[in-house]
Amino acid sequence: MTTKPIILVSNDDGITHKGLRVLVESIASFAEPIVVAPNKPQSAMGHAITIHYPITINKSHLFGSIEAYECSGTPADCIKVAKKHILKEREALMVVSGVNHGSNTAVSVLYSGTMSAAIEGALEGLPAIGFSLDNHGAEADFSHIVDYIQRITLQVMNNGLPKGVALNVNFPNRQTEPIKGIRIARQANAYWSDSFVERETPAGRPYLWLSGEFINNDHGEDTDEWALQHNYISIVPCMYDLTAHHAMALLNSWTF
Amino acid sequence: MTTKPIILVSNDDGITHKGLRVLVESIASFAEPIVVAPNKPQSAMGHAITIHYPITINKSHLFGSIEAYECSGTPADCIKVAKKHILKEREALMVVSGVNHGSNTAVSVLYSGTMSAAIEGALEGLPAIGFSLDNHGAEADFSHIVDYIQRITLQVMNNGLPKGVALNVNFPNRQTEPIKGIRIARQANAYWSDSFVERETPAGRPYLWLSGEFINNDHGEDTDEWALQHNYISIVPCMYDLTAHHAMALLNSWTF
Repeated sequence: MTTKPIILVSNDDGITHKGLRVLVESIASFAEPIVVAPNKPQSAMGHAITIHYPITINKSHLFGSIEAYECSGTPADCIKVAKKHILKEREALMVVSGVNHGSNTAVSVLYSGTMSAAIEGALEGLPAIGFSLDNHGAEADFSHIVDYIQRITLQVMNNGLPKGVALNVNFPNRQTEPIKGIRIARQANAYWSDSFVERETPAGRPYLWLSGEFINNDHGEDTDEWALQHNYISIVPCMYDLTAHHAMALLNSWTF
Repeated sequence: MTTKPIILVSNDDGITHKGLRVLVESIASFAEPIVVAPNKPQSAMGHAITIHYPITINKSHLFGSIEAYECSGTPADCIKVAKKHILKEREALMVVSGVNHGSNTAVSVLYSGTMSAAIEGALEGLPAIGFSLDNHGAEADFSHIVDYIQRITLQVMNNGLPKGVALNVNFPNRQTEPIKGIRIARQANAYWSDSFVERETPAGRPYLWLSGEFINNDHGEDTDEWALQHNYISIVPCMYDLTAHHAMALLNSWTF
C-alpha cells in the first residue's frame, strides 16, 4: 500500500454540496483527502471563527471510505479543527477548498468562506487553494474543470507556494467553446453596489434583505474578472498581510 | 446651528459595550455620530455578511439624542445598512469602529469584526478607522486614549486617506507611564497557535472550544505588536486588495 499525501478539503457551501464532492473525487487519485466541511451553508462568512460558542464535529459517511467530518463551525474553524484536532500527529501537505458554487473574484475574496478556509491554511503554514465556479446552481456542471483542478493542485503539491500565499482560482461556467487557458491575475477593483429589499414579516415587523449588483469599473486586462469574462481560468495569489505599505510614508508625514 | 459632518460608528462587541460609548462620546464634539451597531456580540466575525437571512434594525435610545440603531447583522452588515438604508441621501464623511475590548494586531485583523466594519467603510469609498484597546475587560479604562481617538479621527477627517485604505489603530492598556506616542507600523508576522479544549455536554456529547496562544516570532521593531508591547499606539494602514503581487512572476513561470 503506497501512502498518498494528505490534503485537507473544506468548503463553505456545506458538506452536502456537489462542488465539494467534485473536488474530493478530483484529487483522490493522487492524494488522501480528509474532508472537514461545515454542516450547514456558510457562504459569505468571511474569515469568521467561533470563539463564543462550542464547536461540534461528527464523522460523515457521505464520501464512502474517505475520512470525512461535518463541523458546526465556519470554514476557517474547519481548517483549525482539521489541523489541530483531527490530524493530530499526521501531517497534511496542503489545503484545498471548494469548489464554490459561484465565483469569488474581486473583493468577494474578503466575504468568501471558501477563500477563508484557504487563507486559514496559509496561516497554518500550508500551501492552499480555493476553487470557485462561475455558476451558483446546486446542479452546476463541473465536468469541464476536473482536469484543471487536478493540474493546478498537482503543481502546488509539487512546487509549494511562497509562505503566506494562497491561490484564489476561479473557473468560467461551461460554455460552447472550451476554456481558453489559465491567467495569473490580480484582484479586480470591482465591488458590490448594495441595496436592501424591505419587506414585512407575517406579523408586520419590517426586515431587510441584502441584495446588490456587481460593478466592475476596472478596465485592466490583467484582472480575475477579465479572465473569467473571457473564458479563462483566473489564478490570483492572495496574502493575509493587509498592510498598505504604499500608505506608510504619507502617514509618517502627519503630525498627530 | 452649525452642521457637523456625519461619522458612522459601529463595533463588534455590540451596542451595549463601553468601548462604543467611549468612541461616540470622543467624536461628538466635532462630528455628528450615527451609530449602527450589532445587537449582540460579533467578535471574530471576520468579514462575514448576512445573505441567507433577513436583517432587522431597531432604533436605540442608548445614546440619548444621538441617532443610533441596533442591528441583527455583522459589523460589515452594519456599515452596509447604515450607508444604504439609514443615511439614504445624507452623506457620511467617514467610518469609525470600536473601541474594541481587546487588541487586533497581526493576523487578528483578518478575524476582527471591528476591522471588518472599517474595511467595509473603505470598500464603500469612505475613510475609515478601527480602534482597539489592549484590554479585554468589560470595564476597561479608556480614559488615557480619548485624546488620541480625537486627534487621529480629526487627522483623517481633515486629510482623508488613500483610496482603499483603512487604519487599524491599537492602543496600549493603561500603564503607570503615559503612552509614549504613535508608531506607523506594519502588520506583525505573528499568529495564534490554536488548540481545542475537549469537553462533554451534560448529556455526554463531546464538544470542542477554540483556545489558543499568541505567538510572535517577528523580531521587527516596525510592527504593530512591537509598538503595543512598548507602550506606543500602533497605526497600520490596511487594504482590501489581497493580491500577492510578489508571487505573480513565480506563478507565471509554471506550466499547467
